[in-house]
Amino acid sequence: MYATVLAGGVGTRLWPRSRQSAPKQFSDITGSGRTMIQATVDRLEGLIAPNDTFVITGSRYVSLCAAQLDRLPAANILVEPSGRNTAPAIALACAHLQRRDPAEVVAILPADHIIQDRAAFQKVLRQAERSAQMGYLTVLGIEPERPHTGYGYIKRAHKPLPVAGDLPTFVVERFLEKPDQATAERFITDGGYYWNGGIFVSRVDRLLAEYERQMPTLFACLTRIAAALGSPAQDTVLAEVWPTMPDISIDYGLMESADTVAVVPMQAGWNDLGSWDALEAVMVKDEAGNYPVEGDILTINSQGNIVAASERLVALIDVDDLIVIDSEDALLIGKKESIQQVKQIVTQLQAGQHSDLL
Amino acid sequence: MYATVLAGGVGTRLWPRSRQSAPKQFSDITGSGRTMIQATVDRLEGLIAPNDTFVITGSRYVSLCAAQLDRLPAANILVEPSGRNTAPAIALACAHLQRRDPAEVVAILPADHIIQDRAAFQKVLRQAERSAQMGYLTVLGIEPERPHTGYGYIKRAHKPLPVAGDLPTFVVERFLEKPDQATAERFITDGGYYWNGGIFVSRVDRLLAEYERQMPTLFACLTRIAAALGSPAQDTVLAEVWPTMPDISIDYGLMESADTVAVVPMQAGWNDLGSWDALEAVMVKDEAGNYPVEGDILTINSQGNIVAASERLVALIDVDDLIVIDSEDALLIGKKESIQQVKQIVTQLQAGQHSDLL
Repeated sequence: MYATVLAGGVGTRLWPRSRQSAPKQFSDITGSGRTMIQATVDRLEGLIAPNDTFVITGSRYVSLCAAQLDRLPAANILVEPSGRNTAPAIALACAHLQRRDPAEVVAILPADHIIQDRAAFQKVLRQAERSAQMGYLTVLGIEPERPHTGYGYIKRAHKPLPVAGDLPTFVVERFLEKPDQATAERFITDGGYYWNGGIFVSRVDRLLAEYERQMPTLFACLTRIAAALGSPAQDTVLAEVWPTMPDISIDYGLMESADTVAVVPMQAGWNDLGSWDALEAVMVKDEAGNYPVEGDILTINSQGNIVAASERLVALIDVDDLIVIDSEDALLIGKKESIQQVKQIVTQLQAGQHSDLL
Repeated sequence: MYATVLAGGVGTRLWPRSRQSAPKQFSDITGSGRTMIQATVDRLEGLIAPNDTFVITGSRYVSLCAAQLDRLPAANILVEPSGRNTAPAIALACAHLQRRDPAEVVAILPADHIIQDRAAFQKVLRQAERSAQMGYLTVLGIEPERPHTGYGYIKRAHKPLPVAGDLPTFVVERFLEKPDQATAERFITDGGYYWNGGIFVSRVDRLLAEYERQMPTLFACLTRIAAALGSPAQDTVLAEVWPTMPDISIDYGLMESADTVAVVPMQAGWNDLGSWDALEAVMVKDEAGNYPVEGDILTINSQGNIVAASERLVALIDVDDLIVIDSEDALLIGKKESIQQVKQIVTQLQAGQHSDLL
């Protein structure tokens, strides 16, 4: 099985630790000592070798990838000339992989997710590999912990597929857009619905066939790029063709109307860290009732605070439910329930004199 | 008129900007661009020359004083071998001053006060000088803005003294200890009470006479020190005698039972910055409703916050009435009303692994 790690994102919702110059996947957001992309690759250990692990990222992040993933062969860091969403990125990865073994299975993994239970995750991946080998585009279906309205959902069919292995595998009946609250609550009550975290497993040739069937324009571009791979013209052709690739996500462009899509349910402490308050779900409270992500913290009469100190000690007095994220050149302090508004801070930075802090 | 600036304090209530290595008087607490001791000396400009301005401080702060007050002659920085409260410190200053002119008047000024209206302050000092020349120990009486229970009070006599000048001068009827709330409220209602900020003016020989009368032990020590001043034995004698000086404040030791004490009322935007929340009284709100002491601040839906940023930008989201004080190696975040508890943070630092942050 190959892995392709998607590392082209430039998220601002985890500002000030996620920056244009070093998006969250290249930061140690959780204070684990490893960046998110390192943790993503670490998580494959014993299942997918570094030699079979690929990363696709923007040209400005190639050196970050190489530095952080020093066990990966340099040739496994694939460069998208510009950010054009997940469908072209994954297609480009497939073009590379088919030169190795088009019949092999590839796991597509975002670089910026937390998955706490590595063993459970690897079991699910192995199951998905079996299903993918049988020809299914196989999505990992994250067991929903609550009626979240921020994710797309996957509805499975009633009966499991006859796929060998320890875990059940189902046909996907439908992909569902982000629901409203009432609908999300119904999903939870009814059961058989999963969050779509964007992790899936497929044979490379199966994916390419779906591109050809559903996205012929993209596939035509890809054919030109694939023909040039490894030749002296590679970079020229890529630079020429890439900007004409449709800017569309793999979900909209391919998954939702694909033939024979399967889902393997997963319960492995998944979190996409969409904003700072998400850390609460993946952290353990300290004795005083706070979440010390990193660094030295002293608290007096303060509870429920998520604190990422950097080199500085952070002292809290009589404050509750704050998010405090320190960094070398910027400090964020916000009420937990309002921390999504960090986007407005980033907008203000863009508009103002602080583009260096973006 | 001479000035003697008392700069031996080691306040921790303004941690993390006030440290043992650089107490608040050597810090730019208000973001004015000048440290508190610099502002204290600046405030005398046109009234008392640098040559007539003395500082008394601990040996570890001599180089800080010299660096920050570069217009003062080095000989005007007087060193107390150890911190022994204000009565010995002022006595030592008097021993130096009497060699210059014992009949001259000296203004005793703490180095860590804010006085916003320099012109009003200088008028009061001039008035106090007149009163002091007539032989009165003359205290500046700070017009109380509210029934504060954290200060000692001064009660004046009803009728003004026949001292020339623009401002009224009164005999002090009584010094009063820090009152309880009800008593403080009565002081305000009754009128004729002032906060004792510890600023006073006196002839040098008048002060020495009071030391001799009220504190004969201290005076005997002082006589030995004074006899050695300027001689090769100066430092030896000082080091030998100083530890035997009574460790007592000028208020308890001398002022409260002195003969002929006068008070000149002052309304000049005085603030002793006893804790971080005091900044609110001496600052102007920005358009968003916060108090940006220093540095770059971005706010969203946040009001009433006192923020001293350092090199880092501080972004606030949906938080009110916080105090945020950044420094190179420590960051304080506290609820305004509870910020006095910073003392407990300092205690924790002392007990723990962070003596470098004291």
